[in-house]
Amino acid sequence: MDHFEVNILGCGSALPTTKHALSAQVINLREKLYMVDCGEGTQLQFRKTKLNFNRLNQLFISHLHGDHCFGIPGLLSTLALLGRTGEIVIHAHPDAEKIFRPVLDYFCREMPYRVRFNSINPGAHALIYEDRIVKVYSIPLKHRVPSCGFLFEELPKSPHIIREMVDFYRIPFSLITSIKNGADFVTDDGMVIPNHRLTRPADLPKKYAYCSDTAYSEKIIPIIEKADLLYHEATFAQQDIARAKETYHSSAQQAAMIARKAQVKQLFIGHFSARYPDENILLQEAREIFPQTTVATEYLKIKL
Amino acid sequence: MDHFEVNILGCGSALPTTKHALSAQVINLREKLYMVDCGEGTQLQFRKTKLNFNRLNQLFISHLHGDHCFGIPGLLSTLALLGRTGEIVIHAHPDAEKIFRPVLDYFCREMPYRVRFNSINPGAHALIYEDRIVKVYSIPLKHRVPSCGFLFEELPKSPHIIREMVDFYRIPFSLITSIKNGADFVTDDGMVIPNHRLTRPADLPKKYAYCSDTAYSEKIIPIIEKADLLYHEATFAQQDIARAKETYHSSAQQAAMIARKAQVKQLFIGHFSARYPDENILLQEAREIFPQTTVATEYLKIKL
Repeated sequence: MDHFEVNILGCGSALPTTKHALSAQVINLREKLYMVDCGEGTQLQFRKTKLNFNRLNQLFISHLHGDHCFGIPGLLSTLALLGRTGEIVIHAHPDAEKIFRPVLDYFCREMPYRVRFNSINPGAHALIYEDRIVKVYSIPLKHRVPSCGFLFEELPKSPHIIREMVDFYRIPFSLITSIKNGADFVTDDGMVIPNHRLTRPADLPKKYAYCSDTAYSEKIIPIIEKADLLYHEATFAQQDIARAKETYHSSAQQAAMIARKAQVKQLFIGHFSARYPDENILLQEAREIFPQTTVATEYLKIKL
Repeated sequence: MDHFEVNILGCGSALPTTKHALSAQVINLREKLYMVDCGEGTQLQFRKTKLNFNRLNQLFISHLHGDHCFGIPGLLSTLALLGRTGEIVIHAHPDAEKIFRPVLDYFCREMPYRVRFNSINPGAHALIYEDRIVKVYSIPLKHRVPSCGFLFEELPKSPHIIREMVDFYRIPFSLITSIKNGADFVTDDGMVIPNHRLTRPADLPKKYAYCSDTAYSEKIIPIIEKADLLYHEATFAQQDIARAKETYHSSAQQAAMIARKAQVKQLFIGHFSARYPDENILLQEAREIFPQTTVATEYLKIKL
């Protein structure tokens, strides 16, 4: 179950359309789920993915515009109805608690679990969450209100044990963990089998960067450098670049420029303005600059 | 355009499913739109109906449970993005303003239109809204929190002018309104043409009653009596009647009993618990008692 998977729940922008749902993603990291943004209707989109609501514990909110967070009260109410008991942590701008706590207090009076808000400073690049498999950093973005992206960085993994060697030397199960951690094995007759003969190198830890909403900002490049996957907003096509500037959003070309300069492995663009009936215009503009670009769509699963 | 049409946007209960959206309806009365309840995702459902957002001015909220009102902030934000200027009135329990005003103040700082809350007392049967085509009354319901249904009662309509008589007597256009209001016509040579020869009786004004959420309550019968259409919640089947009692909801049989005792013309049941994969069980139980029963479904348009 060693996977790292990004599930797109919604990739539209502020005005919902019949085609795109509002911003939300679920990152599935070895069956633990991390949600990024939670626009209205996210719980419905989540349900359609068939992912298990109970495995969600961390919710990261990029910024306090309604299309990125109006789904929070409904999602949390549903988790309560489903009998959840484990704490949920919402990582967001300090105002999130001021706004949503009264709503939760009113509508979820008998909450069977705790909701904790972890205040983050969207202006700082900082470690905001860490567990045994991942570290999550904020990525300061440039928007009309304080906004940050999130960098999910897997912790270094253990090397793979070579099964045949374990069988050959009859290595007891109790020693496997120490061998994974680098120990050699000594046979009964005193022969030392060096660790590198017992193991194959660990998979490289993966990096995923979510950057939405934001104007073009080269400041993020050192943070997201060489990420395996970048999701970057591309609200507008180049013909509407003036509107992009005005609203602190990016064009598809700008998203691609960031991807190229940061040398990421692949780029997914999203947060599409409702004005484009077909996102091919955005895709083409981005691919001219960064060929490894794909258009995000609802229910897409991206495996890293 | 003399129509009265109920559009079902959502008829699921608290737990959203991939089949049913959360409670919301739009009543289209001669091209003026009135919304009843606004669960999460309502603006998306609304969009799918292709009804014109600009014609919506009145929003009626039955009670403050999330599945009936979490769609309000998103809907109002979208109306702002669409450049609305006319006032929106939200008729709801007084707490609605306490809860939603801070959310609107935070997220819709530059609202191009005014949102006014009209506090209603869900415990009283009262006239809460009136315009030139309809009167809306509250219907006190019986639920875990204060809850009321809504009775939409069309005002008496003008009689129809008989076109052929207008042509025959060459009645000038300037007199049409007074004839519609009951005046006779006097010809140039002094002959009196009585009003009943110039007009056909007006269509009977229509009555629509929305009753959700509620336990079985006979108190509503005199209010909804002989309505052309009753939408009554039927969250549970008879096998789960204990759960219905506990949660102050109705069974399909109970909804049908109310319809029969109130002698309404037709009954639509809705607000289905997610536990029934197929609502036929509810439909059959209701039809045994009240044959003119139909199961509500999303995007259904009911013409009165």
